Amino acid sequence: MTTAVIIGTGNVARHLFDALKGAETVRVVQVLGRNPGELTYFGKYCETALIKEGMRYADIYIIAISDDAISTVSQSLDFNIGLVVHTSGSLPVSVLNTTCRKGVLYPLQTFSRDRDCNFREVPVCIEAEDPDDLLLLRNLAEGISDRVCELSFLKRRQLHLAAVFVNNFGNHLYYLAGQLLRDEALPFDMLQPLIEETAAKLGQMSPREAQTGPARRGDLKTMAVHRQLLEEGIYQTLYDLMSNSIQKTYAKNL
Amino acid sequence: MTTAVIIGTGNVARHLFDALKGAETVRVVQVLGRNPGELTYFGKYCETALIKEGMRYADIYIIAISDDAISTVSQSLDFNIGLVVHTSGSLPVSVLNTTCRKGVLYPLQTFSRDRDCNFREVPVCIEAEDPDDLLLLRNLAEGISDRVCELSFLKRRQLHLAAVFVNNFGNHLYYLAGQLLRDEALPFDMLQPLIEETAAKLGQMSPREAQTGPARRGDLKTMAVHRQLLEEGIYQTLYDLMSNSIQKTYAKNL
Repeated sequence: MTTAVIIGTGNVARHLFDALKGAETVRVVQVLGRNPGELTYFGKYCETALIKEGMRYADIYIIAISDDAISTVSQSLDFNIGLVVHTSGSLPVSVLNTTCRKGVLYPLQTFSRDRDCNFREVPVCIEAEDPDDLLLLRNLAEGISDRVCELSFLKRRQLHLAAVFVNNFGNHLYYLAGQLLRDEALPFDMLQPLIEETAAKLGQMSPREAQTGPARRGDLKTMAVHRQLLEEGIYQTLYDLMSNSIQKTYAKNL
Repeated sequence: MTTAVIIGTGNVARHLFDALKGAETVRVVQVLGRNPGELTYFGKYCETALIKEGMRYADIYIIAISDDAISTVSQSLDFNIGLVVHTSGSLPVSVLNTTCRKGVLYPLQTFSRDRDCNFREVPVCIEAEDPDDLLLLRNLAEGISDRVCELSFLKRRQLHLAAVFVNNFGNHLYYLAGQLLRDEALPFDMLQPLIEETAAKLGQMSPREAQTGPARRGDLKTMAVHRQLLEEGIYQTLYDLMSNSIQKTYAKNL
């Protein structure tokens, strides 16, 4: 049985905790947070404490907090022994400010407070400086996910950057499309089946194969009409940028 | 019982046909195509014919073909009587080159040959010049979808444009992210759970609420690192454009 302490109470901490408490090979012995209110949920299932209070001993300490707080918080904690990991996609192991053994446990998903998550499908990227620690981390990760992979910092950082494109920018595309609908008093949920199917079909084909639309077809007439309909600024600029990029993509390898 | 003839054999025609043959209030009496091979699938369930051959009588003729062929094909067909509709999101009723009554039946979805579709969830937008025709079209549409709505051309065109943003541009974002992964020899399917969850969570919250990431947080340090990691050209340009637009979105209504 691997024991773990979770430091943090946000969405990542919460979903990690929910997954870990269902794992047979792991026991979360404590959750640490900044204030009592944030700890209420966790307190129903395990011991909790404020960060400034003492920590339990554990095999693995998981710091699941925002990127910019990792260095400070890791320094403030009094880890005696054990492996300390953070959950960030974009930071190196060395951001952990501790003399303890170090590693990373990065779950690649967007976590929301009120949405359940099937953690077994979430890719969990692990990294550790020591081979034994890597094994320890792998055992913990495999207790909650079927998609555990060891990734170097450079690969993890690139994965995180790709995630920014599909999640952050993808979501902003949805927002921009929603504004287009609002201009004509159309409800956003009309797009929901299309948005979900656009995402889901990639389980069966590559984005290259899935591409459709006027830019893919080289339908200049429709593209000209679209540009006229769009406001100058972000809408026209984005339309041109994406349409040109789509056209280039398919011109390249003909 | 409403009778229908489908003209066309592509993905839209195929999925419409599959939905209509399951509807209790509609009977597809014939499918017309350009060559015998394309008609094989439909021939298992109903009468088929080549476009140049004669048409059956029906209450509604559904021209489900590519935008640029609608005018020519509708002119070449010998409709005697009945309502003729096309399935395009971006063209007016008037593109139908016929003396018959006219309308539109636009299903808002991306249809793939090898993927099943729950048509009852697909928004179906209808338009007709005559109120009786609108009723006829509504009856047919409600036989296959729970989300039928009457939309003017201007609203339908705007909806189609929004669909280009989420589907065509969304898919191209997936492609670009896939290229970032390829640079580090990472498999695309690592992103699949994130892509699907980014889409699915909009069933529960608005894109405005769902936005996360460095641009949303105003995390200039991470954004600077991201820009350095990206190639000049589409990647950097898109990163700046989307990040600026996200920052503006949240600066606006604080």
